[in-house]
Amino acid sequence: MDIIAKLTALGLSLPAEPPKPGGLYEPVRVIGNMAYVAVQFPLHNGKLAYRGRLGAELTTEEGVLAARYCALNVLAQIHKHVGFDNIVGLNFIEAKMLTTEGWNDFARVLDGASGLFLDTLGEAGRHARSLSGAHSLPMNAPITLTTTFTVR
Amino acid sequence: MDIIAKLTALGLSLPAEPPKPGGLYEPVRVIGNMAYVAVQFPLHNGKLAYRGRLGAELTTEEGVLAARYCALNVLAQIHKHVGFDNIVGLNFIEAKMLTTEGWNDFARVLDGASGLFLDTLGEAGRHARSLSGAHSLPMNAPITLTTTFTVR
Amino acid sequence: MDIIAKLTALGLSLPAEPPKPGGLYEPVRVIGNMAYVAVQFPLHNGKLAYRGRLGAELTTEEGVLAARYCALNVLAQIHKHVGFDNIVGLNFIEAKMLTTEGWNDFARVLDGASGLFLDTLGEAGRHARSLSGAHSLPMNAPITLTTTFTVR
Repeated sequence: MDIIAKLTALGLSLPAEPPKPGGLYEPVRVIGNMAYVAVQFPLHNGKLAYRGRLGAELTTEEGVLAARYCALNVLAQIHKHVGFDNIVGLNFIEAKMLTTEGWNDFARVLDGASGLFLDTLGEAGRHARSLSGAHSLPMNAPITLTTTFTVR
Repeated sequence: MDIIAKLTALGLSLPAEPPKPGGLYEPVRVIGNMAYVAVQFPLHNGKLAYRGRLGAELTTEEGVLAARYCALNVLAQIHKHVGFDNIVGLNFIEAKMLTTEGWNDFARVLDGASGLFLDTLGEAGRHARSLSGAHSLPMNAPITLTTTFTVR
Repeated sequence: MDIIAKLTALGLSLPAEPPKPGGLYEPVRVIGNMAYVAVQFPLHNGKLAYRGRLGAELTTEEGVLAARYCALNVLAQIHKHVGFDNIVGLNFIEAKMLTTEGWNDFARVLDGASGLFLDTLGEAGRHARSLSGAHSLPMNAPITLTTTFTVR
């Protein structure tokens, strides 16, 4: 698989199993020509790789790595539930972050995810996005990613 | 109607009229093969059934019931503006909650809505979802739900 | 162009160039029959027209104007990257706002954007929407708008 090879070249790999849903929902809802990927967390080997607020407990650099873990989990969900060959393209990323009040590195952190999608999916990884600071996130995660893909 | 009967069996019923929009928007925007349902609140008989923060003014159990009221209002909007026979399926739920800082029962609260969609719509009610804590919500509502459906 | 004329009649005009993305994403992702417009800020002539929290540094009236700037930037993105003639309609608006705790003029502020879409796009501008208070937003913007359009 081309995308797996691209990840390897970046020193990355997909988790053996993508994170399982923590409630009564699907990890990926495929319907019509759309795949709705449920919110992904910066989980690595079954636990949060980072926890806390950007600008306080975590640096911007750690935020970038957290965003990349979220993106890896998105790719793992797509690999398992859709298949890379079946995607037309990534549509949109919605990111929520835990931040302190003065902190303003939203775009740099989210580029950790956006860049990984571009590096692995190429043209198909182009996307629009939105981002905001949340008051609270499950498990005190510093960032979450919600994504949709167009599929065939 | 099958779904109405399922609600009755659960001891629930749709409001006679779904909540009216509080601004210059549509309660449901049907376009192409999609129905975008505007944000729904835990309204019951025209007023908020619950108000305040989960973990402070409200318990998790009250949050579950608030989530269920939101879901009932989604179903009422679909019933009126689309018709249950015209839906292919629920795509996605986006939930926002008012919470205290330590609180972490996001998934349990949202299962109050997810479970109701599954219990009433069956396979068509399967969905992906996202959830986060908001700094503030209109009317100090503890939870809001935004949903999209694929329709024929 | 009809829509440009309608803006002129309202005393408004599109920016010469829509805001450029501040990261590794597309201003508008057109894929299938959808156009996903990246988050828009109340930018005017390249800088934020308003900054800070609604209910503290900013009044509701200033929030309405900020929402309108966001909507103007959405229209500018669509004009440049899709073309008004190619839209079937606006689907959905997701608004995030910076607010104080007691503040509750969400709907009035967002009507500043919703009203502009209706005034310019007519029937095609009808939409559902969602809105919430964020803990933090890039550049301390008081409001952001994320929108999707159905296109041909």
